[in-house]
Amino acid sequence: MGQAERVGVSLDKKLLGMFDDLIARQGYSNRSEAIRDLIRTRLSEQRLAKPSTQAVAGVFLVYDHHSTQLAGKLVRLQHSHLLQVIASTHVHLDHHNCLEVIILKGKVREIEKVADSMAVLKGVKLSKVNVMTTGKDLT
Amino acid sequence: MGQAERVGVSLDKKLLGMFDDLIARQGYSNRSEAIRDLIRTRLSEQRLAKPSTQAVAGVFLVYDHHSTQLAGKLVRLQHSHLLQVIASTHVHLDHHNCLEVIILKGKVREIEKVADSMAVLKGVKLSKVNVMTTGKDLT
Amino acid sequence: MGQAERVGVSLDKKLLGMFDDLIARQGYSNRSEAIRDLIRTRLSEQRLAKPSTQAVAGVFLVYDHHSTQLAGKLVRLQHSHLLQVIASTHVHLDHHNCLEVIILKGKVREIEKVADSMAVLKGVKLSKVNVMTTGKDLT
Amino acid sequence: MGQAERVGVSLDKKLLGMFDDLIARQGYSNRSEAIRDLIRTRLSEQRLAKPSTQAVAGVFLVYDHHSTQLAGKLVRLQHSHLLQVIASTHVHLDHHNCLEVIILKGKVREIEKVADSMAVLKGVKLSKVNVMTTGKDLT
Repeated sequence: MGQAERVGVSLDKKLLGMFDDLIARQGYSNRSEAIRDLIRTRLSEQRLAKPSTQAVAGVFLVYDHHSTQLAGKLVRLQHSHLLQVIASTHVHLDHHNCLEVIILKGKVREIEKVADSMAVLKGVKLSKVNVMTTGKDLT
Repeated sequence: MGQAERVGVSLDKKLLGMFDDLIARQGYSNRSEAIRDLIRTRLSEQRLAKPSTQAVAGVFLVYDHHSTQLAGKLVRLQHSHLLQVIASTHVHLDHHNCLEVIILKGKVREIEKVADSMAVLKGVKLSKVNVMTTGKDLT
Repeated sequence: MGQAERVGVSLDKKLLGMFDDLIARQGYSNRSEAIRDLIRTRLSEQRLAKPSTQAVAGVFLVYDHHSTQLAGKLVRLQHSHLLQVIASTHVHLDHHNCLEVIILKGKVREIEKVADSMAVLKGVKLSKVNVMTTGKDLT
Repeated sequence: MGQAERVGVSLDKKLLGMFDDLIARQGYSNRSEAIRDLIRTRLSEQRLAKPSTQAVAGVFLVYDHHSTQLAGKLVRLQHSHLLQVIASTHVHLDHHNCLEVIILKGKVREIEKVADSMAVLKGVKLSKVNVMTTGKDLT
């Protein structure tokens, strides 16, 4: 956190009580931290709605690793988008299935295009993409 | 609002500036109101995650009104769940399609069951359900 | 439905069994209907991602009806967007709270703007907007 | 894929045309594959709604790596849930921020609890959790 400012917020007693209960259950150490998180999440959502926002994302692919061609195709796809792919983690789920988490950086619009091109590959059973702002400026 | 309490929140200057920009664009008259809305939304989401929470919902159905049997079936379905259905609004969309918005009150779990039984009716093309807490206590 | 075409889909026996179980529990009368619903929902989501798509929406507002100025402001807001507001339904929730469901038609982008301008009104405790395609062409 | 079965689906010509356009743009090689993906996604969503479902998840945390205590706390948290944490990947975002993707396996209910306990840590600016079924049986 850079330079801090203390602002006053007027809250109904009952509403405040319920909020305090919730954040205590969640494990927050103080109210300011919980309110800062609400504000950062709101700002982040607002930005991610714009396709040109710089973001970081994880593409999750569950696939049958017996479809051996898939692994090669995925590697080629990652390299053809070299600037965006940062890392990928491979997890063994069971005898048939594995999970690949591919971490990308780029504009929201481009991330979705790359994620789509991975999701349709033969052998991929399930896919999801999780997009986040990079946290820059969200002090 | 019942009895109000003023609480101090410590925020980074830059984060505060971005939040003030956002809520000005949205049209909020003051910061307290915007923060209260964030808190109420958070509390509401938390409650709706529990299937036993009392809620109010709108079931949206887009259907072809030429499938005349559907209207009758929908009315019967609404009456068979008499305690929960509060109102329904019918909107003419175009020559073929109409929208029916059915407002229900009840436990989250029951609302989803009723919504499901409407979504599968022959003639219904699209359906969605929008669930909210009733606002009770969220002063 | 206009002119129908029968297409063959190759499915793993186990996957098909699980799908048949699910749609039987949901109450579908046949498999084609369930698959048509999946396809229509997918097409609808794809369209709603574009801000220029014509859509129909319900704005849900939970508010304290003792804040008497709100009702008037809402009516004025609805009239200032006269072309888009089709209907609104008012539901009494408890001694303090009521729900207003305002049905709008227009481009996704405009719907979100109008919904935002309603959500920030003083007295509105919770708000949500539910956007759907109009079903046109989704035969 | 195990033993396959060919099923016939009756679709309106126009609807089929729009679906074929969409999947061609997405890059699917054939219609069966696209419909199988819709079915698997639907089955997966249904299962994830149950808190007891075995799932795999990625917890995404954006945090300031200058808050040096956080890294240690995260490692301790991961080890206190030893059975569930499979892997974690650390990504450098900019001078201040980094992303940690922690991959967990377990029941939906437990995953959410662990994710919550990480999200509230001082120094974590943004967090999101992405939950998926393991793909077992979704042949």
